[in-house]
Amino acid sequence: MIFRIIARSPDSAARAGEIVTCRGLIQTPAFMPVATRGTVRALSLRDIEELGFDIILSNTYHLYLQPGIEVLAQAHGLHNFMSFQGPILTDSGGFQVFSLSDFCRVLESGVEFRSLRDGSLHFFSPESVLDIQRVLGSDIMMVLDQCAGYPVPEETARNAVDRTVDWARLSRNYWRSSFDAEKQALFAVVQGSVYKDLRRECAERLVEYGFSGYAVGGLSVGEPKDAYREITEYTLGLLPPDRPRYMMGVGSPLEILWAVKHGTDMFDSVMPTRIARNGTIFTSSGRVNIKSAVYESDFAPLDDRCGCYVCRSFTRSYLRHLYKAGEITALIYNTYHNLFFMNSFMADIRKSITSGGFPELYDKWERLYRNDGNSDHRQAQGTNKLS
Amino acid sequence: MIFRIIARSPDSAARAGEIVTCRGLIQTPAFMPVATRGTVRALSLRDIEELGFDIILSNTYHLYLQPGIEVLAQAHGLHNFMSFQGPILTDSGGFQVFSLSDFCRVLESGVEFRSLRDGSLHFFSPESVLDIQRVLGSDIMMVLDQCAGYPVPEETARNAVDRTVDWARLSRNYWRSSFDAEKQALFAVVQGSVYKDLRRECAERLVEYGFSGYAVGGLSVGEPKDAYREITEYTLGLLPPDRPRYMMGVGSPLEILWAVKHGTDMFDSVMPTRIARNGTIFTSSGRVNIKSAVYESDFAPLDDRCGCYVCRSFTRSYLRHLYKAGEITALIYNTYHNLFFMNSFMADIRKSITSGGFPELYDKWERLYRNDGNSDHRQAQGTNKLS
Repeated sequence: MIFRIIARSPDSAARAGEIVTCRGLIQTPAFMPVATRGTVRALSLRDIEELGFDIILSNTYHLYLQPGIEVLAQAHGLHNFMSFQGPILTDSGGFQVFSLSDFCRVLESGVEFRSLRDGSLHFFSPESVLDIQRVLGSDIMMVLDQCAGYPVPEETARNAVDRTVDWARLSRNYWRSSFDAEKQALFAVVQGSVYKDLRRECAERLVEYGFSGYAVGGLSVGEPKDAYREITEYTLGLLPPDRPRYMMGVGSPLEILWAVKHGTDMFDSVMPTRIARNGTIFTSSGRVNIKSAVYESDFAPLDDRCGCYVCRSFTRSYLRHLYKAGEITALIYNTYHNLFFMNSFMADIRKSITSGGFPELYDKWERLYRNDGNSDHRQAQGTNKLS
Repeated sequence: MIFRIIARSPDSAARAGEIVTCRGLIQTPAFMPVATRGTVRALSLRDIEELGFDIILSNTYHLYLQPGIEVLAQAHGLHNFMSFQGPILTDSGGFQVFSLSDFCRVLESGVEFRSLRDGSLHFFSPESVLDIQRVLGSDIMMVLDQCAGYPVPEETARNAVDRTVDWARLSRNYWRSSFDAEKQALFAVVQGSVYKDLRRECAERLVEYGFSGYAVGGLSVGEPKDAYREITEYTLGLLPPDRPRYMMGVGSPLEILWAVKHGTDMFDSVMPTRIARNGTIFTSSGRVNIKSAVYESDFAPLDDRCGCYVCRSFTRSYLRHLYKAGEITALIYNTYHNLFFMNSFMADIRKSITSGGFPELYDKWERLYRNDGNSDHRQAQGTNKLS
């Protein structure tokens, strides 16, 4: 995996670049749609391909439980299984173990947990989650980490950092000794809750071991917006500038812009697709709630400045009708539009960095989305839950 | 509306033809996918367009209740509203009034009913349902009729026939006096339950009035398969050979073949899309239940003789996984495949009639689908409910 920075914004840490993987090039800053169980909710694969995302994310935890590693091994990996040939990043499953299990026990060697599906007991170790991601054939793998949640006492957060760093060391050694690093990159995850000293310690020790890239984890889990922004900025500043930086679970326009401004290269979130299924639409002039009665006889497109299939074909009135009628096509069309929006939004960000117009773009979106700025962070929170 | 017969099968009443409407040509025998509320469940419009159906069906009752006629009038009709420019047939709403309402009262002048949605009272007359279909801009309209259900005493069936014939006369007069018959054709519906004399009387009186085409209604509502087939054959034989004949609510392969053999030109049913959403797949070698554990590691396509997007892209193993995971894309892919199957199946039927090979085609499918022949009729029954 090669990471090249192509352009920098002179007024901030924002940068545009590209990640070269065996399966294709990823232009950064990049947004990764989430294909939790090997499919993006409500969108056919060819819709995803048409939308033009360079990389998608899938979830080790969910795929491990179903269809299971044996089926995925027989299918020769996730790319073949889901028939997608572009780059795939998979998480380690750690976040889901801690957030979705009704029982989990952290040991030095890994984490034991009970599946919510059938109550069965499972064990993830730093090595075993890499083995699973080997079977999946992930282009970018994530290390097993421990997310402390929010709020937590400093002592608890420190223990989670120690565990995270220890597991990262084991992961790195196992990866170096028995993986083809050209084909499967490995990213570490910085934890430390809202404690700056813990964030610093965690970041420094991970950087010392050396990974293909670095993610910021343990945020968007319920902390106030100001704490979120302060810790994000601080943590991003601790990461080596020559490696990709990845903000996990961040997908709202304003938070993406803010993180890009401070040097982030990659994002993922189920938020744009989840709110679409709930009737909330991103447009170039703010959010639209398509359920609203004001759209009953509104025969304009969702966004008259959008060129997507849905905006070229359908009116707000029709899309409201589909939503009110509980039609599956309402979910399809809303999701398609929101992901088209996300892809255009990221392309605009990249272009603005290259052309020197990032500050203007930033201010424009701040104005447009300011009014739902708070809900923006609130809606972003917890999006990690399913991802 | 012009109807031309292009070829006849020498051994049966089967015929291939075409219906010319202002919005395009319909090759017959034709299957119409059902867009109940102005959208086919789980399939985007462009998927429907790609599949290549010449005509779709939509439901007056559902559209009348939501979004309502005012919105549809402001949208300049259903074609604009749903952004579909091909021919649309709409039913009269009568079937839904009788099957979906918890209250309906038949008067000489029409039928009063209570909406299941909000308990509001409504009234449909032969004229008012044509006015609604005028607003919808339907290329083929259906008359208001009374379906007697099954089983019913002959007296009840006779009353329903009298009402149906009376309403058909009023419909025909209203249509002749105030519609552009070139743009909006009108089909009548033959009722009469399982009573041949009633079927004969109903058909003869409707034919006397004169309509663009004739539908057979009041079947697939719970009657035994033998009665269904006997009455269908008998009724089809009463209809004028130079007008399209339409079997309402029939969509299973064997019942379509059987009705084509006896001279049917048009079909509609929600069955192929409904069973798709339930995991049942039509293939060239019989039905497949994709939920079955036997497909867990089956990396063949749904149907290796099918050329559809789903069969070219995905395996049974993957599609089973999506279904088990409750993914919306399972509904999308299964529906796409089943409708591709239906369209190919109808094209094969038309080709076989033209080339003289219809009896062989008939026998081939009888063999392939014989084993689920009974369930075939059972599953077809009641598909009218939502359509």
